Amino acid sequence: MEYNKQQLEQVLYDIEPYTHRTPVLKSRLINEISGSDIWFKCENFQRMGAFKMRGAANAILNLSKEQQDKGVVTHSSGNFAQALSLAAKSLGVPAYIVMPDSAPEVKKAAVRTYGGKITECPSTLKDREDAANQIQQQTGATFIHPSNDTNVILGQGTAAIELLQEQPDLDFIITPVGGGGLIAGTALAAKFFGRNCKCVGAEPLEADDAWRSMQSGNIESNSSANTIADGLKTQLGDLNFPIILEDVDDIIRVTEAEIKSAMKLIWERMKIVIEPSSAVALAAVLKESQLFKGKKLGIIISGGNVDLKKLQEMIS
Amino acid sequence: MEYNKQQLEQVLYDIEPYTHRTPVLKSRLINEISGSDIWFKCENFQRMGAFKMRGAANAILNLSKEQQDKGVVTHSSGNFAQALSLAAKSLGVPAYIVMPDSAPEVKKAAVRTYGGKITECPSTLKDREDAANQIQQQTGATFIHPSNDTNVILGQGTAAIELLQEQPDLDFIITPVGGGGLIAGTALAAKFFGRNCKCVGAEPLEADDAWRSMQSGNIESNSSANTIADGLKTQLGDLNFPIILEDVDDIIRVTEAEIKSAMKLIWERMKIVIEPSSAVALAAVLKESQLFKGKKLGIIISGGNVDLKKLQEMIS
Repeated sequence: MEYNKQQLEQVLYDIEPYTHRTPVLKSRLINEISGSDIWFKCENFQRMGAFKMRGAANAILNLSKEQQDKGVVTHSSGNFAQALSLAAKSLGVPAYIVMPDSAPEVKKAAVRTYGGKITECPSTLKDREDAANQIQQQTGATFIHPSNDTNVILGQGTAAIELLQEQPDLDFIITPVGGGGLIAGTALAAKFFGRNCKCVGAEPLEADDAWRSMQSGNIESNSSANTIADGLKTQLGDLNFPIILEDVDDIIRVTEAEIKSAMKLIWERMKIVIEPSSAVALAAVLKESQLFKGKKLGIIISGGNVDLKKLQEMIS
Repeated sequence: MEYNKQQLEQVLYDIEPYTHRTPVLKSRLINEISGSDIWFKCENFQRMGAFKMRGAANAILNLSKEQQDKGVVTHSSGNFAQALSLAAKSLGVPAYIVMPDSAPEVKKAAVRTYGGKITECPSTLKDREDAANQIQQQTGATFIHPSNDTNVILGQGTAAIELLQEQPDLDFIITPVGGGGLIAGTALAAKFFGRNCKCVGAEPLEADDAWRSMQSGNIESNSSANTIADGLKTQLGDLNFPIILEDVDDIIRVTEAEIKSAMKLIWERMKIVIEPSSAVALAAVLKESQLFKGKKLGIIISGGNVDLKKLQEMIS
């Protein structure tokens, strides 16, 4: 599939009424530690607390009026469930969310707050797909994948476009890699809106499917994923993987200790609440500091939805 | 003592090279909950993580060259120790900090990072004053009080000036009340820079010395102060109390549960790291929501220096 700059500009324009233009922060101390010059694009301040709002809004906006009337459906226990619910609510569209019955009550409550209609099912992928299929048949709702959907990918890319509008001469943009929507959209944004800007992914060693996929040229999966970066356990898809293969320069893998240390640094020094997945990008920059020395870097802080009760175990 | 608008404008101009102009944030959800329209002035993003940087910088700037060469001394185990150290470092001035030997190692480390020279002593007020006196005699350093100092008061007022420059038609500005420097400076800023802006203080019920002082007309102290808002345990002073009596409209007292609840709301919904003292102002707004209904409010988020390891007990 071919993408172009005008297409991304249109998406940025389209989603603007439904999303925040999030702030870009800097930290003198983290610049000193890293030896580079970092602009943090703070999607933790995005509506519902994560970049996923962008892709969800764009996906719904690209449905026909008839499709919108029938609603949207997804299966997710994470940020995309909240994002699709809130984007749908903002657009007056019904949202059906399939969640595993084991999902924490706090996540279900968040989806309900945003008006999503929850269907619970056992937590296997097959059960979740079956439940989503059944809802599609009963309601005519359109299935929206959290990361492997062209409009979702383009929507996620708008965070990097906004960042490059503020700071056009970035040498690198670094994002965490989960299902691949954010990094694919960011890679397109870097290609079309950067001057000579490379896109680099960051991934937990404990869930390094994207790194292995880049090596093998095929979509690999994780047999286990014992990481605190719980948003990054998913695998790439056939729509975002070709973009990643073509436009992502490298993927850097980091340990759990490196993720925790980067997360603590951001909480303590920047005074912002971020989720563990968001810390993975800074962890990668600190790990490969020679590569980034003296460079201008953009880091996408992907989100801030974290259970404060679990903070202690996350940083210790 | 008389104060005027030109004097405060000059302070804002003077400290500008040594401080950040901190961002102002809004939260749609907190506006819905409170029924008012709130602008949060985020001094947690200030250098060293708290508004105290402003007063410390202004106090040192108002010393003569001879005084600056001999250095400054204070006794504090909190944010002012860090603020005076960093302000002194920025201005090439020696800083001597008297800290109780019981102070947490993390706080001592922060002072050292900013170049402050620590003298440890037993934790009684008399021991601290004796140690500070001795340093003054030995070095000729000037003692700077954390809150009861005219230049400190004027410096702290600059946060509210910046807020009113962005949002000139605020009906109220609400700040926490500890030693009285922030609220006195804010009250002056509201009087000189607001259109018809009242200044209101917020205080823990467990350390309500300022509320009692307003009632009695004398500076009262706390016999105990069992509050998580550990920055607010100190009492008012003879320089800030007259300003407070004249220009502060009211002081609202809140329970520990109300402080924790407001703190959690800000962490979870605004995704910013604040210290418990900072949550007291929002707690007051939520408690007296009838008073503030439909009004435009400024809240000074005083700082973000919190021990993450203690977060669990703070919010539970």
